[in-house]
Amino acid sequence: MAERVYLDWNATAQVRADAQAAAAAALAVCGNPSSVHAEGRAARRLIEEARAHVAALVGGEPRNVVFTSGGTEANAMALSPFMAITDETKPRDRLLVSAIEHPSVLAGGRFPREAIETVPVTADGRVDLAALEAALARLAAKGRKRPLVSLMLANNETGVVQPVAAAAALAHAAGALVHVDAVQAAGRIACDINEIGADLMTLSGHKIGAPRGVGALIKRDQALHFTDPLIRGGGQERGARGGTENVTGIVGFGAAAMAVRAAAAEEQARMTALRQRLEAGLRARAQAVVFGADAPRLPNTTLFAVAGIKAETAVIALDLEGIAVSSGAACSSGKVQASHVLAAMGVEGVLAQGAIRASLGPTTRESEVDRFLEAWIRLSKTLLKRQPGIAA
Amino acid sequence: MAERVYLDWNATAQVRADAQAAAAAALAVCGNPSSVHAEGRAARRLIEEARAHVAALVGGEPRNVVFTSGGTEANAMALSPFMAITDETKPRDRLLVSAIEHPSVLAGGRFPREAIETVPVTADGRVDLAALEAALARLAAKGRKRPLVSLMLANNETGVVQPVAAAAALAHAAGALVHVDAVQAAGRIACDINEIGADLMTLSGHKIGAPRGVGALIKRDQALHFTDPLIRGGGQERGARGGTENVTGIVGFGAAAMAVRAAAAEEQARMTALRQRLEAGLRARAQAVVFGADAPRLPNTTLFAVAGIKAETAVIALDLEGIAVSSGAACSSGKVQASHVLAAMGVEGVLAQGAIRASLGPTTRESEVDRFLEAWIRLSKTLLKRQPGIAA
Repeated sequence: MAERVYLDWNATAQVRADAQAAAAAALAVCGNPSSVHAEGRAARRLIEEARAHVAALVGGEPRNVVFTSGGTEANAMALSPFMAITDETKPRDRLLVSAIEHPSVLAGGRFPREAIETVPVTADGRVDLAALEAALARLAAKGRKRPLVSLMLANNETGVVQPVAAAAALAHAAGALVHVDAVQAAGRIACDINEIGADLMTLSGHKIGAPRGVGALIKRDQALHFTDPLIRGGGQERGARGGTENVTGIVGFGAAAMAVRAAAAEEQARMTALRQRLEAGLRARAQAVVFGADAPRLPNTTLFAVAGIKAETAVIALDLEGIAVSSGAACSSGKVQASHVLAAMGVEGVLAQGAIRASLGPTTRESEVDRFLEAWIRLSKTLLKRQPGIAA
Repeated sequence: MAERVYLDWNATAQVRADAQAAAAAALAVCGNPSSVHAEGRAARRLIEEARAHVAALVGGEPRNVVFTSGGTEANAMALSPFMAITDETKPRDRLLVSAIEHPSVLAGGRFPREAIETVPVTADGRVDLAALEAALARLAAKGRKRPLVSLMLANNETGVVQPVAAAAALAHAAGALVHVDAVQAAGRIACDINEIGADLMTLSGHKIGAPRGVGALIKRDQALHFTDPLIRGGGQERGARGGTENVTGIVGFGAAAMAVRAAAAEEQARMTALRQRLEAGLRARAQAVVFGADAPRLPNTTLFAVAGIKAETAVIALDLEGIAVSSGAACSSGKVQASHVLAAMGVEGVLAQGAIRASLGPTTRESEVDRFLEAWIRLSKTLLKRQPGIAA
């Protein structure tokens, strides 16, 4: 039997292996990082080394890295009216998010629902900067001069890279703070917190090859702090996030951050070439639509659909052929929902239901791309015959 | 050089080894548990097996287990006005906590500060049931009939076991819901969620030998649900807690829960005998005060002090002798604060500053207890000579 083709990658095999080895070693370190005895101090040292590696991945300072249980918690922590620079006391009064953010950002954190405003995207899947500028101006005119703007660096479904540096410049000019969800982008494209101008940046460990269940919220400036943290008690993470640290996950995260930085440039070129091969095949031989095709995109992500084929059916059929892909966003338990991202881009519902995401990883070989293409063309013919009504 | 004596245990070496092996194996399972392909389903299966083991540890139902990043997050999640049984809509309007709760409970979660009331403890370190009953009656008289009561099953500093079943009966009679923080008790004494009558129960993975960074909030009844979860987005954990699951930690937690259940009864007796040996030695040869000595306590925990010796100094001196103990609660980074637990028990500040916690683990041997006693007696003489002023 042929080996399985895994096109739902988050990181290279080497990065994953490095991270796993580091995490496995950390499993054996028994101390509580808050204990003052030698075992506790050993655990603390491991965490601080990891903090430095994670900070370096985004050009930030170690002391400004707050470890969390993942990207979702980091987003929930970031979207708080209760943050201040030095001695401000007024809470942030408005949250602006793009229409294509991750559900954990769309949920709005601790902003009341009526304080959340959505900025549209253009047809190519990028946040509409003119609309953002107008929204900021409207708020300023109403005297609401303390908004928080939250944008992702790259979309998790389409891979489309967002104009966050330009957006941050607009936001700062209007007195807003800027949070950037870099979960999908980190380790794949440059994401320097200073160059982007993000006041806060979210990272997820498992997206760069660390174990699942660890992430970070990184501040650009130490002066920014949370006056009412989401998870309190214990005083860990300089008071920003209570709870005994996930030493295993954090150490794996640090190792992955270090490894992914070293590998990034080379992998980016190789992956882009593979993705082009994949997309050329899909377009030429399967009449597929590639979403956001003309926008700048992550090197490893392709979201496509063929009119008349439902993603849910196709993913299962491919899985039986030994090929793992994902139907749009894999978030809630196997639940396939209409993509809010494609809807925001103005993609028709019927076509959006067919969206399949292939995420290449650096173990992905040309032969795997070709096997996927062969399987897809064979299956799509069968599926189109069975579902003639859907294409209408 | 003699091997180090580690008296800051959370779990047996065997349980830890089982949990580590399971977690290490899970590190290699690459799928996102929400993905529908084979790799995703494999990760999902591991999580659901772990959920069943964790539920079994407290006699609960797997579907009522919500995995979190640890005990602190589970407590933050539990202390929410926004929970309901079936179709209630009014938020909970009052939070009652005992004075000796963990800082993550004292922080009060999402209850506003003015809605939090503290119930005192008696001199032996147990929550004062008469005071609880009076507080509930006062609230009822004011028309506040929807309180949440949060109590720990065993205190993390003294090991004193709390009368939570009796407290839960009082609370339920007054229309309150009951949250029990069983972080310190699980795996050491019985903690059946139904026998105790807890509506919600917090567990921490690393306290029973799992990797750090995983915990659970367990509901007794499926009908209880959070109307506004703490961490949203993604729909994981039946909508109760967003974010890709910490598969490694959860699998380790499940393995630890299974192993600790099997080992519990035997270890309890062995550990109690060792603790008695330790305490008899401390009392007879070092004039130590054992806190909560006459109350029911966890089999493995001894909190003691010798008038005139500061814990901070003693912990470092013992560490240099190769012996790891903890000074009261090890929560914030190495920060030694006056114990709110001992203060609530009416212990004098000067004596409380000397509180040292020895936590026996099931690899602990008689010879280790004896080595600790010898070292303590030698050190305490030196330390008493150096700090004559403190005893006053």
